[in-house]
Amino acid sequence: MNYQQLINEVYSEVQSLQLEGIVANYIPELSNVDIHKFGISLVTTHGEVYCIGDTQEKFSLQSISKPFTLAMVFASEGEALWKRLGVEPSGNPFNSLAQLEYENGIPRNPFINAGALVITDILRSKTNTPVEDILLFIKKLTNTDNISINQKIALSEMAHSNRNKALAHLMKSFGNINSSIDELIETYCYQCAIEMACTELAQAFLLFANHGHNRLNGDQLLTISQTKRINAIMQTCGFYDEAGEFAYTVGLPGKSGVGGGIAAVLPGEFSVVVWSPGLNSKGNSAKGMKALELLTTKLGHSVF
Amino acid sequence: MNYQQLINEVYSEVQSLQLEGIVANYIPELSNVDIHKFGISLVTTHGEVYCIGDTQEKFSLQSISKPFTLAMVFASEGEALWKRLGVEPSGNPFNSLAQLEYENGIPRNPFINAGALVITDILRSKTNTPVEDILLFIKKLTNTDNISINQKIALSEMAHSNRNKALAHLMKSFGNINSSIDELIETYCYQCAIEMACTELAQAFLLFANHGHNRLNGDQLLTISQTKRINAIMQTCGFYDEAGEFAYTVGLPGKSGVGGGIAAVLPGEFSVVVWSPGLNSKGNSAKGMKALELLTTKLGHSVF
Amino acid sequence: MNYQQLINEVYSEVQSLQLEGIVANYIPELSNVDIHKFGISLVTTHGEVYCIGDTQEKFSLQSISKPFTLAMVFASEGEALWKRLGVEPSGNPFNSLAQLEYENGIPRNPFINAGALVITDILRSKTNTPVEDILLFIKKLTNTDNISINQKIALSEMAHSNRNKALAHLMKSFGNINSSIDELIETYCYQCAIEMACTELAQAFLLFANHGHNRLNGDQLLTISQTKRINAIMQTCGFYDEAGEFAYTVGLPGKSGVGGGIAAVLPGEFSVVVWSPGLNSKGNSAKGMKALELLTTKLGHSVF
Amino acid sequence: MNYQQLINEVYSEVQSLQLEGIVANYIPELSNVDIHKFGISLVTTHGEVYCIGDTQEKFSLQSISKPFTLAMVFASEGEALWKRLGVEPSGNPFNSLAQLEYENGIPRNPFINAGALVITDILRSKTNTPVEDILLFIKKLTNTDNISINQKIALSEMAHSNRNKALAHLMKSFGNINSSIDELIETYCYQCAIEMACTELAQAFLLFANHGHNRLNGDQLLTISQTKRINAIMQTCGFYDEAGEFAYTVGLPGKSGVGGGIAAVLPGEFSVVVWSPGLNSKGNSAKGMKALELLTTKLGHSVF
Repeated sequence: MNYQQLINEVYSEVQSLQLEGIVANYIPELSNVDIHKFGISLVTTHGEVYCIGDTQEKFSLQSISKPFTLAMVFASEGEALWKRLGVEPSGNPFNSLAQLEYENGIPRNPFINAGALVITDILRSKTNTPVEDILLFIKKLTNTDNISINQKIALSEMAHSNRNKALAHLMKSFGNINSSIDELIETYCYQCAIEMACTELAQAFLLFANHGHNRLNGDQLLTISQTKRINAIMQTCGFYDEAGEFAYTVGLPGKSGVGGGIAAVLPGEFSVVVWSPGLNSKGNSAKGMKALELLTTKLGHSVF
Repeated sequence: MNYQQLINEVYSEVQSLQLEGIVANYIPELSNVDIHKFGISLVTTHGEVYCIGDTQEKFSLQSISKPFTLAMVFASEGEALWKRLGVEPSGNPFNSLAQLEYENGIPRNPFINAGALVITDILRSKTNTPVEDILLFIKKLTNTDNISINQKIALSEMAHSNRNKALAHLMKSFGNINSSIDELIETYCYQCAIEMACTELAQAFLLFANHGHNRLNGDQLLTISQTKRINAIMQTCGFYDEAGEFAYTVGLPGKSGVGGGIAAVLPGEFSVVVWSPGLNSKGNSAKGMKALELLTTKLGHSVF
Repeated sequence: MNYQQLINEVYSEVQSLQLEGIVANYIPELSNVDIHKFGISLVTTHGEVYCIGDTQEKFSLQSISKPFTLAMVFASEGEALWKRLGVEPSGNPFNSLAQLEYENGIPRNPFINAGALVITDILRSKTNTPVEDILLFIKKLTNTDNISINQKIALSEMAHSNRNKALAHLMKSFGNINSSIDELIETYCYQCAIEMACTELAQAFLLFANHGHNRLNGDQLLTISQTKRINAIMQTCGFYDEAGEFAYTVGLPGKSGVGGGIAAVLPGEFSVVVWSPGLNSKGNSAKGMKALELLTTKLGHSVF
Repeated sequence: MNYQQLINEVYSEVQSLQLEGIVANYIPELSNVDIHKFGISLVTTHGEVYCIGDTQEKFSLQSISKPFTLAMVFASEGEALWKRLGVEPSGNPFNSLAQLEYENGIPRNPFINAGALVITDILRSKTNTPVEDILLFIKKLTNTDNISINQKIALSEMAHSNRNKALAHLMKSFGNINSSIDELIETYCYQCAIEMACTELAQAFLLFANHGHNRLNGDQLLTISQTKRINAIMQTCGFYDEAGEFAYTVGLPGKSGVGGGIAAVLPGEFSVVVWSPGLNSKGNSAKGMKALELLTTKLGHSVF
């Protein structure tokens, strides 16, 4: 398979479709990004890198930071982790608090906000420098020091975090959060405000295509089984209320963020990142969804 | 009707039933109260006062503070108040956050916690001394300066307020709370920690039996129509998930609190307060519910 | 109080407001009624009858049949009735099936459809001629044989009863329905299709204002306590998702139907029926709600 | 890979664990099965068949019939199918009716009961002999005429179908069911009462591992894309409220039934069926779940 040709074709076809979407606007700092940005980077488990479009420009990870914190915490906690959250899809766009209340403060999975907050809470209990540790974890996967946090976005998110604070307080009322809420939300907002370029993110995400092995320095960060399990959770829970749709049309484990990025893997083969800031009605990158659908269709290959 | 004989009979019959219940224990300070305390005070619109049992001992108002703050805010805001909350029963013991989320941060009525928080938020926007104002409002109705706040209970409630903070943050995310959450919760916990004795509370509650008129100093605090409306809301929403049961067995507008108090009125006739700290499974005073049922049965008279 | 003058004033003022609403249209037969019909009948516990407007014309009782079947079943079953349903407001316009599912097939109260189906199911277990018995019960209260069922409406409702069948099957899955679903739905549709004129209905409803006593023949059909309890349930649950609003603005126990009727009582004083087919967004007669609000406001008297 | 050795090892290890579970008992006919039955059959895309244990004994397909009816209807309707149901996980063990009500009668996916009823409704609109057609479809995939329906189970399920009737009536009230409810439920109960042995079912399920191609007669029943999509839906929605758990521990698309069967595929490689009637608390075969977890762990290979 000529991957460069593949992503070139995907890129042109998606561009011709004139998909637009809407840039995330719940905080002003996210809405300033140019909606026409579009890039695709694919990195194979052999280390080959293929790019097209705006793949060197930084964008906000947002929820794509969640698989990394999950990996860090899963590696240290092992299966004991699942006492504090589940691995089932939430299926509820409309009432995240309702579900959390009904299920006694145990989030359904690590990729809904409530679950990601629990992961961050565990991470905070292991270190005094959680944000620095997350950055270091990612830098080692990308072999660069040029990964940082957009302070403006982090601060703006902290100023618009009432709903996440509601989730955190509700979980704390059930005894499932140990940090102070303000400190937890601060760490969480910093983590979401990490910025990376497509290629950097594809390199970092290769961890999940490469059986938990950091190709750059030889570290085994996750066991094969843990990597498979994170992929399974990404497949069933990685796309808000569109996880089924993504499995259906694309057929790869992946994770999206409201910054417009989508990262996905074909285990054993490659990781791929698409970035385009225009979001569809479910909050996933419109061009990103289409690009990955075309990619697995043209490839004739997905996990299914 | 000989009211003294009536409450004497009710008192003895209820005592003979050996109802127990469980003292509220979500904060240690509330659980220290003697479960055997039991008092009934009835005050007529002519100013006659009838008491039996532990009617001079202070207890924690808790949610019975809500009709007073509603009265203060309704008097100043009028019907405009109802843009920010409703007058319908909630019907949901199990998912207050769920309902609030579904209904876009507009609480169903002023007596569920979410609604009471909105009332307190409005009150805070009108004054720099909300707690002092509430105390003053109640003192004028009871003609005594001896009404105060139990600091230990207030502080303890503030330390156990994660669920109320979750409600407040959720409403703030919908733009329905203006105060800072910490300050709002502080005012709310202070208001709930006001302590009064049965007779004092019955005197204060006479406001709702007396067409909004403060019998002690001649002030018209609420219009006749506003008083009727607060009574209607107490009837349909005043008893957590037992409002229908209270209407069904007692048939008076009223409000209960987890401190074990129940205050009720027969409009135009009297107010009545029962205090006994043992709560039934719905969080209402077990002896209090029974006493008021016997009272209206023996009286042969209720609002229905 | 000059009741004739009272209802005359109410009638004119409401007419001048040009409230419209929308005629119920879920079945064609109900939508054919003239939206401009408007009548008010008031009957006192002394037997005086006051009318204005279209008070001799028959309209479809629909849900106003529910207090009558409740009265029949409550009289025969007593408190044992409440094993199969509750007395709490439902508070949920949007998910009647959800609530019923969560609460294991026990309807919240006798005035939501699920609860009314349980009442009809019990009635069916007591007699082989349930529909005839309901008609006979009502005829005795109105002293006329001229009460009948609109067959077209009954048949049309049976043809549009999928949602009620869903409720009935769900309750049957929990063991809370004994009849065959088809037969139960047939009885229920017949009961809802009973037609009465304002004055007839006000005479029949006097039962609930008159302590359970049929003024016309001296029968004590309900005990004083049972009557009070039905009134309490009407107050808290009688108006779909507008029970709180009706308590708030009108302050009388009552029951509405999508045929445009509202029946209410001031216990010990009178029953009153308003009919106007235009419904507000909550499914209650727009003119009817306003007329009763004006009536208690002008009267300066309600239960609160 | 020596598949025979693999399933032998899995079989012995699972047997040694003494997992029990509970046989489905909502109808007597299902509860009569011997809980100690246990069989594993694996069929490769090259046509090799491997078996161990009770693999020639018939068991009740129950929900494992759903992928077959989905395949039939998807092949004929194409993407237009998804106007009437979705592809998202439901995430709600506790309120299937609630979700259906909230989402206006459009089931979340074809594997919850509501969605399977829509699929059967569509199938019924295409043929006068839906049950015969389903049997024929399966027989062609297994190359035997010895596939039939257990009449006792079918009739017993029809007698215990109140909840499914509730779902069907609710959907019909939204216009999403065309059949008469009684006829629809009959077809559905017959489809669920089909009986097959492990090896037969593995042969039939090979369709989903073999890109939609019937290996036995060369027919292309589904396109590659359709097959991938059914696999994606099985992965995200195939295991009641344990879909995430199955993805997490096993990592294969599959479908379980309360008869104790689980069928799964590794696309391009093999189909595998485990049968053991003891169910875990989520309604999936206890030994079956464990066997498939061991199988992919030993194999070092899953879709993730």
